[in-house]
Amino acid sequence: MRDYIIKDIGLAEAGEQRIEWSRRHMPVLQKIREQFEKERPLEGINVVACLHVTVETANLIHTLKAGGAGIALTASNPLSTQDDVAAALASEGIKVFAIRGENEEQYYECIEEALKIKPHVTLDDGADTIALIHSKHQELIGDIKGGCEETTTGVIRLRAMAADGALKYPVIAVNDAETKMMFDNRYGTGQSTVHGIMNATNILFAGKTIVVAGYGWCGRGIASRSRGFGGNVVIVEVEPRKALEAVMDGFRVMPMTEAAKIGDLFITVTGDISVIRKEHFQVMKDQAIVCNSGHFNVEIDIPALTELSSQVNQIKNDVQEYVLKDNRRIYLLAEGRLVNLASAFGHPPEVMDMSFANQALAVRYINEKGKSLENQVYRVPVEIDNRVAKLKLGAMGIEIETLTEEQDRYLHSWTLGT
Amino acid sequence: MRDYIIKDIGLAEAGEQRIEWSRRHMPVLQKIREQFEKERPLEGINVVACLHVTVETANLIHTLKAGGAGIALTASNPLSTQDDVAAALASEGIKVFAIRGENEEQYYECIEEALKIKPHVTLDDGADTIALIHSKHQELIGDIKGGCEETTTGVIRLRAMAADGALKYPVIAVNDAETKMMFDNRYGTGQSTVHGIMNATNILFAGKTIVVAGYGWCGRGIASRSRGFGGNVVIVEVEPRKALEAVMDGFRVMPMTEAAKIGDLFITVTGDISVIRKEHFQVMKDQAIVCNSGHFNVEIDIPALTELSSQVNQIKNDVQEYVLKDNRRIYLLAEGRLVNLASAFGHPPEVMDMSFANQALAVRYINEKGKSLENQVYRVPVEIDNRVAKLKLGAMGIEIETLTEEQDRYLHSWTLGT
Amino acid sequence: MRDYIIKDIGLAEAGEQRIEWSRRHMPVLQKIREQFEKERPLEGINVVACLHVTVETANLIHTLKAGGAGIALTASNPLSTQDDVAAALASEGIKVFAIRGENEEQYYECIEEALKIKPHVTLDDGADTIALIHSKHQELIGDIKGGCEETTTGVIRLRAMAADGALKYPVIAVNDAETKMMFDNRYGTGQSTVHGIMNATNILFAGKTIVVAGYGWCGRGIASRSRGFGGNVVIVEVEPRKALEAVMDGFRVMPMTEAAKIGDLFITVTGDISVIRKEHFQVMKDQAIVCNSGHFNVEIDIPALTELSSQVNQIKNDVQEYVLKDNRRIYLLAEGRLVNLASAFGHPPEVMDMSFANQALAVRYINEKGKSLENQVYRVPVEIDNRVAKLKLGAMGIEIETLTEEQDRYLHSWTLGT
Amino acid sequence: MRDYIIKDIGLAEAGEQRIEWSRRHMPVLQKIREQFEKERPLEGINVVACLHVTVETANLIHTLKAGGAGIALTASNPLSTQDDVAAALASEGIKVFAIRGENEEQYYECIEEALKIKPHVTLDDGADTIALIHSKHQELIGDIKGGCEETTTGVIRLRAMAADGALKYPVIAVNDAETKMMFDNRYGTGQSTVHGIMNATNILFAGKTIVVAGYGWCGRGIASRSRGFGGNVVIVEVEPRKALEAVMDGFRVMPMTEAAKIGDLFITVTGDISVIRKEHFQVMKDQAIVCNSGHFNVEIDIPALTELSSQVNQIKNDVQEYVLKDNRRIYLLAEGRLVNLASAFGHPPEVMDMSFANQALAVRYINEKGKSLENQVYRVPVEIDNRVAKLKLGAMGIEIETLTEEQDRYLHSWTLGT
Repeated sequence: MRDYIIKDIGLAEAGEQRIEWSRRHMPVLQKIREQFEKERPLEGINVVACLHVTVETANLIHTLKAGGAGIALTASNPLSTQDDVAAALASEGIKVFAIRGENEEQYYECIEEALKIKPHVTLDDGADTIALIHSKHQELIGDIKGGCEETTTGVIRLRAMAADGALKYPVIAVNDAETKMMFDNRYGTGQSTVHGIMNATNILFAGKTIVVAGYGWCGRGIASRSRGFGGNVVIVEVEPRKALEAVMDGFRVMPMTEAAKIGDLFITVTGDISVIRKEHFQVMKDQAIVCNSGHFNVEIDIPALTELSSQVNQIKNDVQEYVLKDNRRIYLLAEGRLVNLASAFGHPPEVMDMSFANQALAVRYINEKGKSLENQVYRVPVEIDNRVAKLKLGAMGIEIETLTEEQDRYLHSWTLGT
Repeated sequence: MRDYIIKDIGLAEAGEQRIEWSRRHMPVLQKIREQFEKERPLEGINVVACLHVTVETANLIHTLKAGGAGIALTASNPLSTQDDVAAALASEGIKVFAIRGENEEQYYECIEEALKIKPHVTLDDGADTIALIHSKHQELIGDIKGGCEETTTGVIRLRAMAADGALKYPVIAVNDAETKMMFDNRYGTGQSTVHGIMNATNILFAGKTIVVAGYGWCGRGIASRSRGFGGNVVIVEVEPRKALEAVMDGFRVMPMTEAAKIGDLFITVTGDISVIRKEHFQVMKDQAIVCNSGHFNVEIDIPALTELSSQVNQIKNDVQEYVLKDNRRIYLLAEGRLVNLASAFGHPPEVMDMSFANQALAVRYINEKGKSLENQVYRVPVEIDNRVAKLKLGAMGIEIETLTEEQDRYLHSWTLGT
Repeated sequence: MRDYIIKDIGLAEAGEQRIEWSRRHMPVLQKIREQFEKERPLEGINVVACLHVTVETANLIHTLKAGGAGIALTASNPLSTQDDVAAALASEGIKVFAIRGENEEQYYECIEEALKIKPHVTLDDGADTIALIHSKHQELIGDIKGGCEETTTGVIRLRAMAADGALKYPVIAVNDAETKMMFDNRYGTGQSTVHGIMNATNILFAGKTIVVAGYGWCGRGIASRSRGFGGNVVIVEVEPRKALEAVMDGFRVMPMTEAAKIGDLFITVTGDISVIRKEHFQVMKDQAIVCNSGHFNVEIDIPALTELSSQVNQIKNDVQEYVLKDNRRIYLLAEGRLVNLASAFGHPPEVMDMSFANQALAVRYINEKGKSLENQVYRVPVEIDNRVAKLKLGAMGIEIETLTEEQDRYLHSWTLGT
Repeated sequence: MRDYIIKDIGLAEAGEQRIEWSRRHMPVLQKIREQFEKERPLEGINVVACLHVTVETANLIHTLKAGGAGIALTASNPLSTQDDVAAALASEGIKVFAIRGENEEQYYECIEEALKIKPHVTLDDGADTIALIHSKHQELIGDIKGGCEETTTGVIRLRAMAADGALKYPVIAVNDAETKMMFDNRYGTGQSTVHGIMNATNILFAGKTIVVAGYGWCGRGIASRSRGFGGNVVIVEVEPRKALEAVMDGFRVMPMTEAAKIGDLFITVTGDISVIRKEHFQVMKDQAIVCNSGHFNVEIDIPALTELSSQVNQIKNDVQEYVLKDNRRIYLLAEGRLVNLASAFGHPPEVMDMSFANQALAVRYINEKGKSLENQVYRVPVEIDNRVAKLKLGAMGIEIETLTEEQDRYLHSWTLGT
């Protein structure tokens, strides 16, 4: 097993600085790290972490290491690695296999290399490690106590596997923790997606018609932040209940075939494939901008766009101009990969603080309970969720109301009437 | 059994006009009514409905009657009855027992009278009928197939009963349907509470410090609408996860002891007792305004306020001035009862349309399946929820996106990777 | 001269209660009243006030009276009079000529009666008194020192008069004071218009397409509050700069011919005539709701609507149903008069506090300086504006930043560079 | 006179790409450029432009050049120069004197070099050229027809000069054009300031207490965008009227001494000096973040901060950590210079499009009318303002309402009454 596959170990110092900066904005994870240092609950456990290699992830890795775990870190997306962070971690002796801009072959080589650590726990952001283990490395399954999955897209995949009886070890859907999903997916994705688009384009949001595909937690966040910057938001959604909520929140709702005609900026965040496709490109306005904040780069049908185009120009960093045969121009950001990670820094540390606090506690939970669990997708235990929320409020210096005895009794009684 | 106990049958025409007006804004319920007229699924069934007697409720009653049910309607709150609506329904031959401003004794007499219909199904908004049947009219239980409960407070009571093994027939928590809770509780309570306060006081919301106790769906709605009118909102909440969400939504969060000192206007909507009490009144600013939008008038500790006061003046309709011994004045709206029903018209018909569509379909479900259910609190079946959402979007003329075959397949597959 | 023309003197007590309630929310005006009581700056002066006869106006009248003025009050709109307020003022001995629902003939009779007081100062809300004096009572002009005008529509009329050389005495455009226009027109009209519509219809704003015609201060307020309640707002505006601002604020902007096809609710607030007319009614959706918050009931072309209709039904209080010949129904609120005054209570006292503080100080200013002014429309002197703002902040208990000596010097220097 | 003083001519291609990208988002300026190419209205005129050297400025320079002007460009801020843009312009033969990070001596050397072109018109963003000409280069004044000033801070300085009789040629306050001030200052500064802070820190705005000093157009924009991202905004303001507006907009308002205790993030944008100073640093929370978006880096008293500190660490790019003697840490962004230009790209091109369209047309106006103007500060002629607004709406494809003849007549008449 190699020590690391990274871009340049010389970037370590810059990485350390940035990791330290984010550490200061992740107080919950630090509290857990301090506890882990004392209790060493992960002693003797090997963890493969296939996550976005960012400053916030570095703090999760430090926490797991403080708990006694051996770790191999690999990227969960070829474009999201921060090379200075990879260097910083490698220079501390952590096994890191991630280079920003690696191609698909290299991407899987890195995961393969990481698996040589022989994991007891797998951490995923998109389920790629689990999928690879189940398809090509079944020999590892016997030692694995369980896994954690960080993102909606991965949870969808794993639920499909479990439904097919194909899942061979238990997985905690960290994504579904309330202190993860409602905060990281909404406030984190919302802010960082707008940030990524600004970095790539510097366009003014005010006055633009902004089409958001998907009104889950991520979509709600993006819609709210886009409106918060003066955009006029249109929602495209397939579920009636969510579509109705978008209407009541004051947004226009319509199918993509209609939205495609009026949008200045399109953002996909559905977890599904080909959300923007040939029939939509064909009716877009000249100079429409298209990007994605969903996990995989499949939400925009880039092959279809390429086929419609007479030429493709790299017009600036992270902006490709597709010149259609009728001379309309469509701008694609970050090659359709997660624009918040490719063009900005991903989620702010304050939300990753909660998400990764859930991760760290979930790893401990798997280590302690994994062998007693079924090969299913589990929710994060509610006590973990509550503990994270309380730690966060404490770290922010916010005191909340407490129930009096009378109030607690009232909530549990049923004899008192009108 | 009497035909009706109402204020004045002469108000019928005014009531009919207003019922017709709301009917035009309840298209989903009308669709169901048309179907019920054809299929008569409630033939032979008697229903006791203990609900706020409003124009929207009248449309639910019409729908149930169209389905073949016999109905006795009684009020779920002594202050929320619209006397013209009671008159209109009575003049159509429906048994109605409700007078605005009835005292507590009359309130229970009305429920007693309604129970004489010998119900097969009970509809509640606050669980008063169920509580009365379980405590004083167990003889009716044998014929009852099940009940429906409309509001959070009632569901809390019923869950407590079920947990104690005290619930003797199954109940559908209509409140918990997504198309009820997320819409009626949020958008309905939000708008109508602000409306009620404006009617009672005509105060300007802009620039006021507005303290909202409770950040459930109702509290979120009130906070959002108060901010939408320029208020500076402070949230008081006991659950860490909800408190954290309020912080991230940009509100200040603090215990009531702190909030009490700075609020210009206080709104309780927690489902709990004594949320604003002696220790809070003692530190409020002169001319603070206090009101409630939770189901029962127990959230504000009015006896404690009275005890602190040297006099109480009815300063105008729905506004009582409590002059404290130190001469500070505290204004209590609508005697601490639901301000949105007491001082305005309750939820707008567009949201009651969905809530009562769930009710109507839940009554049918109980009639068909009740005897096969346990004596537990059940959620509304998801098909009912989806059907209501789809009907609503259709009625609003809104078309949503549909999955392509490829997209549907992708969502259920797990072999496709990065 | 008669003592009063009002609906019913028996309503006085109810009016007094409500006037007292609003007085408590008008602290700036009270400060001025206390000063006027001491200094009696209006001794010997007669004032004709042609204003909406509301609780807030009553407090202005009390302030002017405290200053020593003789007063005759008449309504500035046939539908906006609060009869209990008229009664309360009459019972105090103030000359009041106003009945809610008076017809046009009575309306002008009332103004005629009021003019018998032989005014030295005229107060208008819509310039009707000034117009009448200039057209039919030039004999009064000799004694008049000047006038005040409260609303945008009136200022437009008066500027047109002044431009034609037709204005025969100076007028202060109280409307244009920053502490009036930016607050009363925006926050006051915004909130009270939504309030009026809710009272008339109880419709849910969330999810509605709401067309606001006019993006001046009033229009901005209505748009902001409608969005704050979940509406999807479309702006119709004729000035490019304002239209562009609406776009940047995240609203859709289009001509009325387009907006007419998609609106659920239409609100006019332009100060112009026939903003919604035949060609617009012809393309509206069934059950569209149409109302006005501009000063005169000319913004909606009601004769054109009547002509298109086969019948008109008073469907409920303040709602008329126009059944068009093709069976579409259009609902007109409050006969096209100011919906915030006709269906709610007009602006909240907190904003009228500032507007009327400007009025009171402007009357004093005219009394002291009127004869030295030209026959032009003047802005409120900036010292009055500043004084009102400071008094208001003080009354709200808000402390603001103050410049240090160094900062003050810096702002007036120009030699300091980069 | 040298050809250029820039960082690296090799950066030209990257600069050209980015200039072209912004050009596509500046349609109004392009329309004017096309007209200038035909009419050559600036033939024979030399212009010194002391502006932020950004992609948007490059498009202004191209427009002026198309009009026939000779141009020397220099930076208006030592940290805002985009070196690739300077290179691109230099490689086209335009005289450019600007290097990002130049010290104060170099800064003034660059302006001196630019003045060698012997200008007929000066363009400023902060009035530095005008100040230098008036203090050290009075010999140039004879040939100068006039100047343009782009920013609030500069206009304040120039008004002070004019009031002292010290201004020796007329200046157009381009800043005060409605299509500049209300758009660029509000939407541009609002978005780009948040963008700069995100780039420097990646902090989450949601849940933070954000103190904005100054509630002019820039401050309003920053407050609105910070709230739009979930921040809880506190306003510090010295003018009562603006402070009151902030209150009514739902913000808390207080003096800096109070705000300093509770802020997580501070943003100054007042145009004044020492807005955050010793007494404020002394009470700030540990890890407070301080930055500036006002023109000069004097709003934060950095010398005072330095004096209070035991060490200063460059913690990452654009973030300096000041460790106070009591161990609290205060983070200063971008050395207190304009954070939107230092850490992001300045205003988006869509708003600079309008600002620079005003600039280009103002230069033409000065050339044609300058010698007939007094040595005063003038507003942009309203026709220019209107023309810019119309061109912008046209470019965005937005059609607005037009007055009918009847409506136009009504607005100018005064005989029509109630």
